[in-house]
Amino acid sequence: MPNPTATAAAVREDPLRFGVGARVTIAVMADRYSEIILGALQDTDLSALEVRTGDVSTWLGGDEAALLQALTDLASAVASTGEHASIALMLSRGCPGEAVCETPGGAGPRSVPIPQGRRTGQYASAEWSLYPLADSAPGTETDSGPSSGRRPDHMRDIYAAIEHARSSGIEVSTDHYATRLAGDLGLILETVVAAWVLTGQSVQHVTTHLTISVNSPSHEGAQA
Amino acid sequence: MPNPTATAAAVREDPLRFGVGARVTIAVMADRYSEIILGALQDTDLSALEVRTGDVSTWLGGDEAALLQALTDLASAVASTGEHASIALMLSRGCPGEAVCETPGGAGPRSVPIPQGRRTGQYASAEWSLYPLADSAPGTETDSGPSSGRRPDHMRDIYAAIEHARSSGIEVSTDHYATRLAGDLGLILETVVAAWVLTGQSVQHVTTHLTISVNSPSHEGAQA
Repeated sequence: MPNPTATAAAVREDPLRFGVGARVTIAVMADRYSEIILGALQDTDLSALEVRTGDVSTWLGGDEAALLQALTDLASAVASTGEHASIALMLSRGCPGEAVCETPGGAGPRSVPIPQGRRTGQYASAEWSLYPLADSAPGTETDSGPSSGRRPDHMRDIYAAIEHARSSGIEVSTDHYATRLAGDLGLILETVVAAWVLTGQSVQHVTTHLTISVNSPSHEGAQA
Repeated sequence: MPNPTATAAAVREDPLRFGVGARVTIAVMADRYSEIILGALQDTDLSALEVRTGDVSTWLGGDEAALLQALTDLASAVASTGEHASIALMLSRGCPGEAVCETPGGAGPRSVPIPQGRRTGQYASAEWSLYPLADSAPGTETDSGPSSGRRPDHMRDIYAAIEHARSSGIEVSTDHYATRLAGDLGLILETVVAAWVLTGQSVQHVTTHLTISVNSPSHEGAQA
């Protein structure tokens, strides 16, 4: 008979079985968009990730550190062309299915070190949403001590993530339904991945959505 | 002393106080992107909505039916140019703030009729996520009978929404972390708004994210 504790640990340790990954849509506002997107993909080392390209987005599956590195390289390559572009990003962990999570309820949460990003020197602005999803059965969504069996205190993690962003020099402000981030493109991605990983220490299923703008005509004069 | 029941009803009835709105990013993959986006905004009747344009997205605030009409007209105007474009859309209701909802916990849910959309005759493909957010205090997030005080049965609403999409001729399939929709652009928007409104009958705070692709080179030959 399989040991359920060993099975849950094996799922947590395997990023693909735990559903760690990204969907990314790169929209370059130029006639030569296709050349730029293909060039950026070619310049990015995706060897540590599973990759599948679709007509709406590209799916990248793999561990959090490899995802942050690939997303930073990809976004930076697009920004370096000087063309105005919008990058729509969704990150997900803890729910490898679609509407219904396929992981056993007790598989998470998955704790990994917060990945280090890098400054790219490029200015970006972005709108960000973070969703800790309490969709496991009650009592299985957290294995942490004091809050065990209750809804995890994810607001604490969201505030910690906003503090992390501010301390790394990112401008953080609020807007309808979203948090606005502005500053270095690489630090914005680092912040968003950090918040996603941090929240995932107490919640199995966490998604985050980010819409990034680079080389906007309205960014003229802005410094990364 | 204000009557809390009357206050909650007043918040629910006012779409702006209840935080009903959209953030939309139109990314046109052409050198003339600015002309196309401004033209689409000019051709769309936004008089029933509050509008604020930013460098990442445009915020539209107002009731669900007015939002569906404006989003359909806007997306259709972009698609009619023949240029490849990506439209990133976030819809939110029940949380007019940012990280922390500003509505009183007992303000929702808000029930409105499911808005009717219209066929545009244009083919689109899209990736869709729907988030019923159980972030109110336990027992306040639903006033429905059998599930009162427990987490609402939002899976029932999500399945109903998927059925609604299939019955209107939209292709529905699953992919990592998202539901894929393909078919008539207007029916895709109708589906997503219907699911958001339907889920909102039992949950105060519901957001949904949609990334739409129109005029993709890989759509060649596809019929709306």
